[in-house]
Amino acid sequence: MIKLAILGPGLLGGSIALAVRKRRPDTRIAIWARREAAVAEVREANLADTVSSDLEPIVKDADLIVFCMPIGAMAALAGKIAPMISPKALITDVGSVKATVVKALAPIFKNHGHFVGSHPMAGSEQAGLQAARADLFEGAVCIVTPEEDADHSTLEAVAGFWSELGCDVRFQSPDEHDEVIGLVSHLPHLLAATLVNLVCDQNHAALNFCGNGFRDTTRVASGPAGMWAEILLSNRAALSPQIHAMIEKLKEAASLLAENDERRMTQFLMEAKTQRDCLRK
Amino acid sequence: MIKLAILGPGLLGGSIALAVRKRRPDTRIAIWARREAAVAEVREANLADTVSSDLEPIVKDADLIVFCMPIGAMAALAGKIAPMISPKALITDVGSVKATVVKALAPIFKNHGHFVGSHPMAGSEQAGLQAARADLFEGAVCIVTPEEDADHSTLEAVAGFWSELGCDVRFQSPDEHDEVIGLVSHLPHLLAATLVNLVCDQNHAALNFCGNGFRDTTRVASGPAGMWAEILLSNRAALSPQIHAMIEKLKEAASLLAENDERRMTQFLMEAKTQRDCLRK
Repeated sequence: MIKLAILGPGLLGGSIALAVRKRRPDTRIAIWARREAAVAEVREANLADTVSSDLEPIVKDADLIVFCMPIGAMAALAGKIAPMISPKALITDVGSVKATVVKALAPIFKNHGHFVGSHPMAGSEQAGLQAARADLFEGAVCIVTPEEDADHSTLEAVAGFWSELGCDVRFQSPDEHDEVIGLVSHLPHLLAATLVNLVCDQNHAALNFCGNGFRDTTRVASGPAGMWAEILLSNRAALSPQIHAMIEKLKEAASLLAENDERRMTQFLMEAKTQRDCLRK
Repeated sequence: MIKLAILGPGLLGGSIALAVRKRRPDTRIAIWARREAAVAEVREANLADTVSSDLEPIVKDADLIVFCMPIGAMAALAGKIAPMISPKALITDVGSVKATVVKALAPIFKNHGHFVGSHPMAGSEQAGLQAARADLFEGAVCIVTPEEDADHSTLEAVAGFWSELGCDVRFQSPDEHDEVIGLVSHLPHLLAATLVNLVCDQNHAALNFCGNGFRDTTRVASGPAGMWAEILLSNRAALSPQIHAMIEKLKEAASLLAENDERRMTQFLMEAKTQRDCLRK
């Protein structure tokens, strides 16, 4: 019987609790929430064996502690719990940016437990406990991000935890992660938001004519704004050059259009189609 | 009993046949296909009362003729059928661009039947008869695009046809249509393709880490490349300035990132979220 501490009962924290209940029913689940209203909500949903807005009873004898709050709040909380936890505790997080999170958290836990970052790619435009699902992690990629001096058994244990929830676990360094996720998550998010804002600026009534293509292309723009602002800014080192590369690529597409070059435009779209079609599998 | 001629049995043509069979079973359906293989496929699917690669038996006594082929092929075909059709025939099309299509087709049918353009927004990234569905038009917006001198009864009849298939019919001038659809369909398509190509250029392996956000944002890039190249180029008058406006808007987002301005980035994302959330209804 192990004890799992979940810090923050949002979409991911709540889904971890549900998934663990389903797949590892002998785990003792303890959930910390900052607000009393959230504590009450977790209690009502009967998601945990212990729920509290006090950190100590949640983390003190936990075998695994998972940070599930917005990344900007993690470092302060890590500083608070470090002296409370077992020296054998494993600690991980679910943040969508890894270099800044790992740089902030790893030194705090250097002599308190064993930390390695994680990013289960299972979020959605929905947020909050109401959107939590026991199957959220099934088939989702989870990137575990060891630093160079990572401890092998910590990695294996944290990877094993995500695997048990149904994740397809991969390993990357925090910097590799941030570059890759900048491209496939943060840049698409910023593009979706920018497109919605552009359409509103140019012709607000056009929104009345949108079909499934626009809905899908912009779905992620419904994600929580504050959380995403934090993510995008935390990853600005990787993301800024990617946005500028996107602008250059768009200029390339614009010039095919200006030149009315059907052969090259077809080729441009065909390359994209060929790659996009591969994602279906 | 009326006779409907469908020119081109692709996703839209095939879906029209299926929807008409279901909702107006007393309609005689005639389908023209360019290739004999497509004629055979339509016969096998038992979609029509008459199928042929000859135009005359399909169009000659049709009450309503719908062009369902790529927009670049429409004008040549229109020139061929104009002398064959009934002077009372209604003619429309399903092209995603309207100004160029209407400009090409309206003069051809000036003294042959009654033409008005349509754009049922019911496509998907799938193509071909295999993807056709009887319910493709249910709840889909269909924009009917009269010119200034449009004949009221023609409009009403064509709008009525789409309504009967389940469409939510709206009216716009061809130019208004192209501006609006440039924003909510053509620009998103080009962005999706550009994003896929950018990711492949920058870090091809990143595609192995994509989640649902990237899948949704880029789904439309799986659409048929040749057909979309034609659409984008046909609408380049409206689309070119929209791409340049998108580039400017992206530069605005990039500067919020460079300045690490969390308040304004949150506001930028919140504006997008607020508008995007409204689309759900």
